Amino acid sequence: MNKRAVLLLSGGIDSATCGAIAKSEGYELYAISFSYGQRHTVELQAASKTAHHLGIKEHLVVNLDPAAFTGSALTDNIDVPKKGISHNTIPVTYVPARNTIFLSFALGRAEVLGAGSIFIGVNAVDYSGYPDCRPEYIEAYQRVANLATKASVEGKAVTIHTPLISLSKAEIISTGVTLGVDYSLTHSCYDPLRDGGACGECDSCIIRRAGFREAGVDDPTRYGS
Amino acid sequence: MNKRAVLLLSGGIDSATCGAIAKSEGYELYAISFSYGQRHTVELQAASKTAHHLGIKEHLVVNLDPAAFTGSALTDNIDVPKKGISHNTIPVTYVPARNTIFLSFALGRAEVLGAGSIFIGVNAVDYSGYPDCRPEYIEAYQRVANLATKASVEGKAVTIHTPLISLSKAEIISTGVTLGVDYSLTHSCYDPLRDGGACGECDSCIIRRAGFREAGVDDPTRYGS
Repeated sequence: MNKRAVLLLSGGIDSATCGAIAKSEGYELYAISFSYGQRHTVELQAASKTAHHLGIKEHLVVNLDPAAFTGSALTDNIDVPKKGISHNTIPVTYVPARNTIFLSFALGRAEVLGAGSIFIGVNAVDYSGYPDCRPEYIEAYQRVANLATKASVEGKAVTIHTPLISLSKAEIISTGVTLGVDYSLTHSCYDPLRDGGACGECDSCIIRRAGFREAGVDDPTRYGS
Repeated sequence: MNKRAVLLLSGGIDSATCGAIAKSEGYELYAISFSYGQRHTVELQAASKTAHHLGIKEHLVVNLDPAAFTGSALTDNIDVPKKGISHNTIPVTYVPARNTIFLSFALGRAEVLGAGSIFIGVNAVDYSGYPDCRPEYIEAYQRVANLATKASVEGKAVTIHTPLISLSKAEIISTGVTLGVDYSLTHSCYDPLRDGGACGECDSCIIRRAGFREAGVDDPTRYGS
């Protein structure tokens, strides 16, 4: 069986845990991260440390042209909201078509490497309301993967794995702790402090803090407030 | 009705004709092209000239990291084949997940612009055997577009238009001539000569020449052989 896999690695809790799960299942991991003018390059440093910690075979950082990513608080000069999470609307931190673009590069990379799997740490429970984290979205993308590539025509389509999709943030953290993930290497904050600490007030910090609390695990993050 | 559209523009016959069809249907066009270390940057010059000729509102060239595109004769140092077209195999000029990546950027761009349509000049008749030009592939991608974006959740999903998908190359050229496309601005060759002329021997030149001949239209291309 083909145990080579491409791992989408962001530097956050979810992709680190997703990578640890894949590793525990015997996959040989090739990580891919993206630099796309996001305000938090500290995220990429976290991805690099996590890749090393997971013993990943290769970590490719793809530079994406910032011109292609406009219209989000994570890439533009728009204030990151700090008023708590609304579950009725998609937040301004949404980046247009982000997971679709990331999965497309992962699909190309998987074909080049001859990998049979892609692991992506999307999560439809404790998430921020992004449409491209839902199971029906991943199912639709799997159909594209089944048709898009030369490998798929030759009967070697890539399988997209989403081991976190139905886990709560607390369950993700508990799973990661069991597998030995070092969460002090990960980064979640959308609006980090100048010294690299977390703001403690953005959606991502709120979800992270609540997850550690609920899991009964000490959060190694240094929060500014 | 939303008549704003993103046009994937390569600089070849198909995307130029696709753009002319969209324009004749009253769409306001925003073109997107990609620079990804392909050996033929002359393609991008052709895209720029075509965009101007079509009276396009904006032409965005997105630089893609060449590190993400390996394993194809169009991007690597692999010889472009000159032995005629085989319809049984996918040629080495196939670039892994190319249209999937291009459509993903177009999807993000459409959302940023508030555009309701994407036009892509894929063609399943006189094509080189690429899996990501088939109708079933486009249908699968439309499902992704229906689920991926904030716009789609808000009931404003993008429609992917493929007006050339069932036309022969000769029919595409005849349609373009009727719509006033200037094919002297377009470029097809996979392996252009140093002076910008076309090799006349690669798959793309062979298909282009046969298309003009069959359409009974003079081919403005200067071929090296």
